[in-house]
Amino acid sequence: MTRKLRMGMVGGGIGSFIGDVHRKASSIDGMIELVCGTFSSTTVKSISFGKGLLLSTERCYANFEEMILKEKELHKDIRMDFVAIVTPNHMHFSPAKMALENGFNVICDKPITLTLDEALALKDIIKISGKSFALTHNYTGNSMVKQAKVMIQNGDLGRIRKVQVHYLQGWLATSIEGTGQKQAAWRVDPKRSGIGGALGDIGTHAENLTEYITGLKIDEVAADLGVFGKGRTLDDDGNILLRFDNGAKGTLSISQIAVGEENNLAIRVFGEKGSLEWCQENPNKLVTKWLDEPVKTYTPNGNGLYSEALEVSRIPAGHPEGYLEAFATIYKNFSNHLLALENGQRPNTPDFPTVDDGIRGMQFIYAAVESNNNNSTWTKLV
Amino acid sequence: MTRKLRMGMVGGGIGSFIGDVHRKASSIDGMIELVCGTFSSTTVKSISFGKGLLLSTERCYANFEEMILKEKELHKDIRMDFVAIVTPNHMHFSPAKMALENGFNVICDKPITLTLDEALALKDIIKISGKSFALTHNYTGNSMVKQAKVMIQNGDLGRIRKVQVHYLQGWLATSIEGTGQKQAAWRVDPKRSGIGGALGDIGTHAENLTEYITGLKIDEVAADLGVFGKGRTLDDDGNILLRFDNGAKGTLSISQIAVGEENNLAIRVFGEKGSLEWCQENPNKLVTKWLDEPVKTYTPNGNGLYSEALEVSRIPAGHPEGYLEAFATIYKNFSNHLLALENGQRPNTPDFPTVDDGIRGMQFIYAAVESNNNNSTWTKLV
Amino acid sequence: MTRKLRMGMVGGGIGSFIGDVHRKASSIDGMIELVCGTFSSTTVKSISFGKGLLLSTERCYANFEEMILKEKELHKDIRMDFVAIVTPNHMHFSPAKMALENGFNVICDKPITLTLDEALALKDIIKISGKSFALTHNYTGNSMVKQAKVMIQNGDLGRIRKVQVHYLQGWLATSIEGTGQKQAAWRVDPKRSGIGGALGDIGTHAENLTEYITGLKIDEVAADLGVFGKGRTLDDDGNILLRFDNGAKGTLSISQIAVGEENNLAIRVFGEKGSLEWCQENPNKLVTKWLDEPVKTYTPNGNGLYSEALEVSRIPAGHPEGYLEAFATIYKNFSNHLLALENGQRPNTPDFPTVDDGIRGMQFIYAAVESNNNNSTWTKLV
Amino acid sequence: MTRKLRMGMVGGGIGSFIGDVHRKASSIDGMIELVCGTFSSTTVKSISFGKGLLLSTERCYANFEEMILKEKELHKDIRMDFVAIVTPNHMHFSPAKMALENGFNVICDKPITLTLDEALALKDIIKISGKSFALTHNYTGNSMVKQAKVMIQNGDLGRIRKVQVHYLQGWLATSIEGTGQKQAAWRVDPKRSGIGGALGDIGTHAENLTEYITGLKIDEVAADLGVFGKGRTLDDDGNILLRFDNGAKGTLSISQIAVGEENNLAIRVFGEKGSLEWCQENPNKLVTKWLDEPVKTYTPNGNGLYSEALEVSRIPAGHPEGYLEAFATIYKNFSNHLLALENGQRPNTPDFPTVDDGIRGMQFIYAAVESNNNNSTWTKLV
Repeated sequence: MTRKLRMGMVGGGIGSFIGDVHRKASSIDGMIELVCGTFSSTTVKSISFGKGLLLSTERCYANFEEMILKEKELHKDIRMDFVAIVTPNHMHFSPAKMALENGFNVICDKPITLTLDEALALKDIIKISGKSFALTHNYTGNSMVKQAKVMIQNGDLGRIRKVQVHYLQGWLATSIEGTGQKQAAWRVDPKRSGIGGALGDIGTHAENLTEYITGLKIDEVAADLGVFGKGRTLDDDGNILLRFDNGAKGTLSISQIAVGEENNLAIRVFGEKGSLEWCQENPNKLVTKWLDEPVKTYTPNGNGLYSEALEVSRIPAGHPEGYLEAFATIYKNFSNHLLALENGQRPNTPDFPTVDDGIRGMQFIYAAVESNNNNSTWTKLV
Repeated sequence: MTRKLRMGMVGGGIGSFIGDVHRKASSIDGMIELVCGTFSSTTVKSISFGKGLLLSTERCYANFEEMILKEKELHKDIRMDFVAIVTPNHMHFSPAKMALENGFNVICDKPITLTLDEALALKDIIKISGKSFALTHNYTGNSMVKQAKVMIQNGDLGRIRKVQVHYLQGWLATSIEGTGQKQAAWRVDPKRSGIGGALGDIGTHAENLTEYITGLKIDEVAADLGVFGKGRTLDDDGNILLRFDNGAKGTLSISQIAVGEENNLAIRVFGEKGSLEWCQENPNKLVTKWLDEPVKTYTPNGNGLYSEALEVSRIPAGHPEGYLEAFATIYKNFSNHLLALENGQRPNTPDFPTVDDGIRGMQFIYAAVESNNNNSTWTKLV
Repeated sequence: MTRKLRMGMVGGGIGSFIGDVHRKASSIDGMIELVCGTFSSTTVKSISFGKGLLLSTERCYANFEEMILKEKELHKDIRMDFVAIVTPNHMHFSPAKMALENGFNVICDKPITLTLDEALALKDIIKISGKSFALTHNYTGNSMVKQAKVMIQNGDLGRIRKVQVHYLQGWLATSIEGTGQKQAAWRVDPKRSGIGGALGDIGTHAENLTEYITGLKIDEVAADLGVFGKGRTLDDDGNILLRFDNGAKGTLSISQIAVGEENNLAIRVFGEKGSLEWCQENPNKLVTKWLDEPVKTYTPNGNGLYSEALEVSRIPAGHPEGYLEAFATIYKNFSNHLLALENGQRPNTPDFPTVDDGIRGMQFIYAAVESNNNNSTWTKLV
Repeated sequence: MTRKLRMGMVGGGIGSFIGDVHRKASSIDGMIELVCGTFSSTTVKSISFGKGLLLSTERCYANFEEMILKEKELHKDIRMDFVAIVTPNHMHFSPAKMALENGFNVICDKPITLTLDEALALKDIIKISGKSFALTHNYTGNSMVKQAKVMIQNGDLGRIRKVQVHYLQGWLATSIEGTGQKQAAWRVDPKRSGIGGALGDIGTHAENLTEYITGLKIDEVAADLGVFGKGRTLDDDGNILLRFDNGAKGTLSISQIAVGEENNLAIRVFGEKGSLEWCQENPNKLVTKWLDEPVKTYTPNGNGLYSEALEVSRIPAGHPEGYLEAFATIYKNFSNHLLALENGQRPNTPDFPTVDDGIRGMQFIYAAVESNNNNSTWTKLV
């Protein structure tokens, strides 16, 4: 490592959950330093919050426009290298666009944008800008997810036939958005979330994990979405049939009204020769099953792993790796990518989610909503 | 107990899996004695097999017709009380019909018949006969399934919103029906299985468990069935969306090509106040989750159970109850029902699956196949 | 099978837990018929109880002496073949002795006798009688226990270095013996239990399982026993260091005051090349770990088993086997042994626990008590 | 937070495992900045390593003496606030002593020192210095460990009767110290490890966790240590009986030759009213069992937690917290303590392990070794 990368943050002030996650995750590997940010809607609040993070007052900005313009004027050894966007969905596109167009790299929370059109537009903007863009589908940063991906890629499981994936939460089981809970309030609001509720918030994670692990594309979906919370208009639950581009089939079920579930993202993949299962809440196990052999369970840094999985782990086997570490892996890989470019290296295919993953997520949301509007008719992801 | 009930068996000879299960399950509680049977297609084979079961030669019959007619002629203190039908699906209806019409009670393996019409006809035959009929949806005999059912019935979970159920096996992942494996051969044969493959064999268990535990009816299904094994015409995999009569939604996924899965029947039910999950392969745990309380796990004969669950257990808490015990509970409850009738008591609603459960199973198969034929269009269970 | 074996039972009347277990376990495989018994301390009560089991009045006896003498007078095709002794410990020796001396085989609950001297005497009596004797250390009847034993026997784990075993229950956490609970009352009474409390009741199971699986002998113990329940004189808890005859070391911990534990018998064995763990409450998994390979988990009738384990299972993989099935395996193997002898075959080493296992159990109790009395001094099992 | 604390590191260069853990753990909460260090035995190597951490050359020191003296001369707004000691055991005392005596706070890896005498001397040095000292018994930083501690402290489990704790690893199952593995080499060397091998390395963690959770003191031990690896003189395995100051009893088992075990630290505590169990490899569950209620399982930031447990979590329920987060909690609490002192506040009892924990650990090692030398005689911790 030749230097620390400098991060500017958009969003993530008081009441934000994911802003703090980004800050902690980006700090674990000692590669990134938070140097500036716009955390709130007013200069005063933004400064107040930034001081708590030990930022200098002059680098706590009133809004992202100010941040981008002022940082641009700073010396290249001082100004931020990239912007981390951790706002609600409707505030992803504009700061991303402006940052890219002003020469800053961007790392952005998911789903990528409010609309599919924005996502497609962003792809062009990124290309023209020549800058880098990462999307924090953080679960792909888990060691056991890498192992799963490589096993399938290498054909260990044979041709994939069936996938079951679900992402179940219970925190919106009651209409807490009416109680002033900020996290709930924007998620149930189409103006801030987009056309998908749970679909966008957690469905895109499930979709992304599925395509990442299997290497397949979801070809079409048949969706039955539910709106169970009183007064809501966006889905807070959904059951979706999947058909993949190789002929495999599956189910994808999501819920934010699944009482008692915390963050239950789990996937099972069945091939012709073997199968695997992984659950985010118990991320340090990858269970694999076989035609003729006993069940084999892999663990991070444990026996029998592919190098891609081993590389992810920071600590020896048996020392549990959690949510933040997986999240940090996205930041680490993004940082290594930026440093490689800076050093004139030609990096490999980036090992972090990109704008293409973001577009897939939006296509998934749009196809599911359209299918649901047509009484679960099969609908292509386009 | 005033006397042992006498059982005659149709099917269950060499190569049968379920025949032996019925024999063992029916013997656990000491309430039933196997007195006769027709185990094979020839008299010689049937006698040979029956001798191994210590039956007298004259009560090993060539076919069910002979068995029913000859047993009928025996003194009432000697002749069989009921017939256990453990043949492939296409041989359920005829022996059941003849037995009932000749004054014998019947206990039958699932699915109830080859066709929905047969199932409906059987209901009338039972009614006219005045005899009793039980269907061995054995999983409902588990202690933790009873606890789950009563919890929901009593409103502990509140109004049900979402159900996830799956039944995954891997034993048909390769086309073993071509190797002479009898169990596989008839299951992939529409003439013997009916219009559903995995649907009939395990899908009906999943459907029955769902309706039993939730007390809800599946109103309609949107099914995407798979035929993965070479040379097959019947489904060996399926992904199905569910809508219930109370507005709840769900998924039901089945597979017999899920490599490495043994007998993975599992269900999750989410209500407004709580949720529960149960897995057949680990049947001695019922996990429940709540809006504001920690996860609570129940065990057979353990703390905090409803009496209906306690009554099922034969042994103290911590002594695992398995598949055979749950199966035996169906036999025990059926036996108690028959003895109560014999003793002039008016039994309660029978606590074992009946012809109505059998009809639901057939309606489920038919609706799923029809939906699948119509590219997963929502289809009512009728 | 040429005929059913006829069983007479000593004990197991009202309030007995283990009597019913013996009856159910012995009936599962259809090899044994209960034909007589002495279930209570008076003829009237014994008859009353026996009638509920559908025994004829004349074969419900007042005491074991009467039973043995009268049965002996019956025709050999009618009289019992063996006696099942399911009384408290102090009533094992006398009926066993008398039965053996009168030509009956015996199957007996554990621990084998009240005292070590009785156990040693019984060995001689058995030898002289020429009859067979089995002890129901039922946990050795589990499929996964067989697999564990054979793996170690075959050297898969290499030389054994360390063993951890525990058997934890919580049902005596409060002094329920004062409330009229029969099961508790005799277990805390030295006159009926012997010099060991939890030691005899569950410690012997732990000791037997350890020696069965590892094939090693416990050479000496250093025991620290606890008496936590008010008013008790016998141990209700114990922590014991183990040294084995091959130099391996270990711990054995037992408790009946471990609040909330149901029947938590679990063992871990570590060799030079691999290790394994098994837990009775989740008996259908055998977890094995290795120097260089991922964790491998075996299941009954599943992939990769030795034939000795496969032979135990009555049902396909994924269909849970429980406590009763394992218990039934002891009865099945004992029955096969008796039938083989009857048929003039020379049976192999019996695959059920014998008087030698019973003596080991008593030696274990005596060594642990002596060690405890000497402030945990190392004490040999002799 | 008013400022970042500045950390200097002793040890943790190439081949160190724990140095990197300290660096990552200390960075998660953004409260600490690494400003200097002595990472290796030569200036050149130390500088080379420090550059990789982006330290300035002049603050990469040749040895701890130089570091302490030179840092002391720096302006108080620049010089390090505390020293993190991450060397093998024999190099804990000297840098700790010198740092304290020169006005620096110290955070030190465990066990605290090479000998008990050093630990006792260190206590005096700390007192005289007026500086703060923390010991990284990191497992006490887990949310569920806090919950367990507070439950017992509040009497939820009633009086404690029994404890089972083990810490099992397999990485020294073969004599890898002969292969140049640095981590193994110093741990099996009495000159660098002290009189305890596994005892010091992991036994002290088990001892500390036990006393932390239960609030009890281990009064005496009866230890049987094993030396299984060829050519070793220090214990690589141990089985130890425990007696506590309140009359409770227990077992503590450790191993580094437990093939296949990764980092299996687990504890069970049984009280008169309830019991609990926690396992480090699955740290996000605390299982509790009760006299009359179902099993209750707690999760970080989940339902029903005490505030002390809630305060530990950085992320919402269901987002797994791992080893690094727990480790970071020690750093966070230490940092908050230092900042409170700096700001003239009188901090509460420090919520991180202190020199007293370190002394207990050494007393545990010494008592266990003495007991083992006396053939497992009960030996007091003094």
